[in-house]
Amino acid sequence: MAKKQAPRLKIIPLGGLGEIGKNMTVLEYENDIMVIDCGLSFPDEDMLGVDLVIPDMTYLEENFDRVRGFVITHGHEDHIGAVPFAAQKFSVPFYGSEFTLALIEHKLEEQKVKTYDLRCVKAGDTVEIGCFKVEFIKVGHSIAGALAVAVTTPVGVVIHTGDFKVDYTPVDNEPIDIERFAYYGSRGVLALMMDSTNAEFPGYTPSEMALGGTFEKVFDQAEGRVIVATFASNVYRIQQIADVAIEHGRVLCFQGRSMIMIVRIAMEQGILKIPEEAIVEVEQLENYSDERVCVFTTGSQGEAMSGLFRMANASHKLNIGKGDTVVISASAIPGNEKAVGKVINQLFSRGANVVYDRLADVHVSGHARCEELKLMMRVISPRFFIPVHGEARHLYHHARLAESLGFGEDSIFVMETGSVLELSKRSGRIAGSVVSGNVLVDGGGVGEIGSAVLRERRLLSQEGIFAVMIAINKETGVLAAEPEVISKGFVFAKESEELIEEAKAAAKEQAQAFAISSRAEWGTVKTLVKSAIKSSLYSKTKRVPLIMLTVIEVE
Amino acid sequence: MAKKQAPRLKIIPLGGLGEIGKNMTVLEYENDIMVIDCGLSFPDEDMLGVDLVIPDMTYLEENFDRVRGFVITHGHEDHIGAVPFAAQKFSVPFYGSEFTLALIEHKLEEQKVKTYDLRCVKAGDTVEIGCFKVEFIKVGHSIAGALAVAVTTPVGVVIHTGDFKVDYTPVDNEPIDIERFAYYGSRGVLALMMDSTNAEFPGYTPSEMALGGTFEKVFDQAEGRVIVATFASNVYRIQQIADVAIEHGRVLCFQGRSMIMIVRIAMEQGILKIPEEAIVEVEQLENYSDERVCVFTTGSQGEAMSGLFRMANASHKLNIGKGDTVVISASAIPGNEKAVGKVINQLFSRGANVVYDRLADVHVSGHARCEELKLMMRVISPRFFIPVHGEARHLYHHARLAESLGFGEDSIFVMETGSVLELSKRSGRIAGSVVSGNVLVDGGGVGEIGSAVLRERRLLSQEGIFAVMIAINKETGVLAAEPEVISKGFVFAKESEELIEEAKAAAKEQAQAFAISSRAEWGTVKTLVKSAIKSSLYSKTKRVPLIMLTVIEVE
Repeated sequence: MAKKQAPRLKIIPLGGLGEIGKNMTVLEYENDIMVIDCGLSFPDEDMLGVDLVIPDMTYLEENFDRVRGFVITHGHEDHIGAVPFAAQKFSVPFYGSEFTLALIEHKLEEQKVKTYDLRCVKAGDTVEIGCFKVEFIKVGHSIAGALAVAVTTPVGVVIHTGDFKVDYTPVDNEPIDIERFAYYGSRGVLALMMDSTNAEFPGYTPSEMALGGTFEKVFDQAEGRVIVATFASNVYRIQQIADVAIEHGRVLCFQGRSMIMIVRIAMEQGILKIPEEAIVEVEQLENYSDERVCVFTTGSQGEAMSGLFRMANASHKLNIGKGDTVVISASAIPGNEKAVGKVINQLFSRGANVVYDRLADVHVSGHARCEELKLMMRVISPRFFIPVHGEARHLYHHARLAESLGFGEDSIFVMETGSVLELSKRSGRIAGSVVSGNVLVDGGGVGEIGSAVLRERRLLSQEGIFAVMIAINKETGVLAAEPEVISKGFVFAKESEELIEEAKAAAKEQAQAFAISSRAEWGTVKTLVKSAIKSSLYSKTKRVPLIMLTVIEVE
Repeated sequence: MAKKQAPRLKIIPLGGLGEIGKNMTVLEYENDIMVIDCGLSFPDEDMLGVDLVIPDMTYLEENFDRVRGFVITHGHEDHIGAVPFAAQKFSVPFYGSEFTLALIEHKLEEQKVKTYDLRCVKAGDTVEIGCFKVEFIKVGHSIAGALAVAVTTPVGVVIHTGDFKVDYTPVDNEPIDIERFAYYGSRGVLALMMDSTNAEFPGYTPSEMALGGTFEKVFDQAEGRVIVATFASNVYRIQQIADVAIEHGRVLCFQGRSMIMIVRIAMEQGILKIPEEAIVEVEQLENYSDERVCVFTTGSQGEAMSGLFRMANASHKLNIGKGDTVVISASAIPGNEKAVGKVINQLFSRGANVVYDRLADVHVSGHARCEELKLMMRVISPRFFIPVHGEARHLYHHARLAESLGFGEDSIFVMETGSVLELSKRSGRIAGSVVSGNVLVDGGGVGEIGSAVLRERRLLSQEGIFAVMIAINKETGVLAAEPEVISKGFVFAKESEELIEEAKAAAKEQAQAFAISSRAEWGTVKTLVKSAIKSSLYSKTKRVPLIMLTVIEVE
């Protein structure tokens, strides 16, 4: 019999390691499980037709009765996007700041989730989740209401920064609570899990306030309307730009579903401070001359059908054209570069002046760079360091950074999604792994789309499909009708009658063999028919679509 | 009757305007047409299954007997990629430098084009193409053998820079021939067409030589193998790195089909100077310890199945792992960012150290920035300025740059692909347009893939296909067999028997109506059957695939 080991704390990332997206981290001690964040990712370009990706929660479902609660650090999709799915499975409290919860509630309503237990917390609050005591600590980020957590566990304190930056001059004048991190640091911290997004970059991320000068200049120079595309959830960015616009005598008009929703929430909560009289509806804009108008819209990532996309493509009431100044106050998230580029080109083609990150300081990151990360490592000085929220490259650089501050190899754990880190007060080790991965959500279906279906979609998307139906007499095997063909995505059917006729003829010729074969040999006949079709198509086009052959046996 | 106008020079871009790719410019005067460049683009992500895109050459085909020749400025794909297609249509000379022609010849052989007329030129040479006198002028670029052209036409001199940068310390020590441009400038230039790629960037593009220090440092620090991924055609880059590697006592091994091909050509032509004994085959590498090895490979854009991709994914003899230093000496071309990021992550995961553009100066552009562009505008001081080789954003900034140097609005033409610029000695105007656009190449087919086929592929790729076949008796309309279903890319069939059975049942129920309808009403019945299938699938999955219904009438 194995010697019974003292209970250990388990840290199990179910997402967010080796990727930027679907963050979810499990803390487990004996009979209690708590979860930090519950996010989604957006599908890769090879996940054809997939709407979104959530973490595989099999491990939590298998330990259903031990899950005590979820803590959400902030309201970005990669931290809250899977809450509607989790809330349906786990009837436990979900903790977050007022702003975070408002965004979550909106998602729950959209997805028609009726029962949930959201609990509002603020920086300085402490809640108990099973055996865990969780304190929320103010951090800065590119969204309002971002909180780090200090979790006091029976083994020691674990700090998870969430996403953060060190901004001494934030727009809301409530900077990151370094003192509180230092308090925990001075009393001893077992493990620090820290945001790795910008670990490749030396120096500091500039303060959000650093953008003020750019916006002043843009509004000083703009002669017509100013249209600003930015992330709806970056309330601080919106506040800054709104202030400058109002100073310049402009009214504000908000466009785009999520922009309107989030601005409403942020104003209700007093996070965004804009005089009501400065805001006008799109229909009222005709009462104002162009130099008195500032429009805020979604679409800074070039998303099809977003406000900016439609304004750039003449499918929005506010068509952008000559005289307009468009500010894209964002940087392209990897994978969106081409889409953003297309919108910029479209705007220039329509005669607008466009200001974007290549030309001016219109965006700062919400994530800490090396000097900020080092500050946190020093102040918190944990026993163990776990870089999180990053792809392999980010985790690697974050780990090297920790090494440069004297962390030994045995105090740094570069983890993978699904691996289990066991911590005692003095030691840690990777002790196996749990089921984890991507669950693909397409329409109403969660998890129905696996690699086989994606493979089929990829095949279909490359050369299309060529479906041939053959009806034969059940008894005699004689063709009961002419073969039917449907071709989609292969060649333009109207121009390819000859191609299709030849394939039909080839199929028909081989299909005669059904009549003279025993039923046992029909598999071979089918193969012959299919390969006759394939040769016929390939010889004409040098391409092979997905060929489907159906044989219907009729009475 | 209209008054006969004095003959004018026509400039007609058939590609490369409003895009970076498939460059092709037509110069036309009376009975003579010459073409500058003949390139391809790579398909956008929404051109599913398309291999490459070439310019629509309808205009040239319609004026077949007036086409006198092609001039190719350099050997990048966006300048030579459509030559195999053009060479089959036009039996005229194709002029280019020795290196350019070697790359073209390789393409022609690959595509089995037998007859062609390639004519080698070098800087300083002049050729006559119809009424055009074409002088080739040395420029610097990220490929060997790049040439600009000065075309003396009956109306005046037109200079087309091709792609270029102003590098006073190029690796081959043969800098751009500013004097020759100045010579033409001093005698009067009618029009300048200039590379706009980097017109958004102020300042100068650094010299290729500026990278030397980085490579020295990488090789000084590397303890194991060094693997360099770069563009095969950037012979200067390869020369620099090879020199440093050899100084550091390493042998060189070239991997990747195009890398091996181009290095062979460049060595044969004396452009690349590497002692034969420094080059080893991959099989010989086992005779050398890791710190004596330097591998050059393709794959700097993260291309699937490239050398680097396979080395990073354990499907190449040279698997990359711990101890290896990988240098990605390139920057991601827009649209490739995610693919490059994936390879970098994969390499870090395997324990390699990776050096890339975010971390060190491992790449410089081959295109001129604003100060270089201004230099050329001043030296050439043309009557008319036409920014080329750029998306709308680049053309816009290039035009603004010209304005800042005093070009009036009526001397700048921001053109579109297909539009026709007519120039006399004193005036210019856009005079209509010709057929132009993208011709999609997929497999052996050129132009068979149109927007209808792409739309079908997109639909198929999003939710897959659900094909239902119904056989009915020709006379009675009674079902002659159970409906058959094939589903691809919709749901994983094995897990969805119930779904399919329900859809079949719904189809069958509606299909009974065939028996009691007159044949004239069968269209309505088909619609009913289809919509029953659709409802059945949607209610279960909240998704609708492409539904295809085939009714076979049997005897």
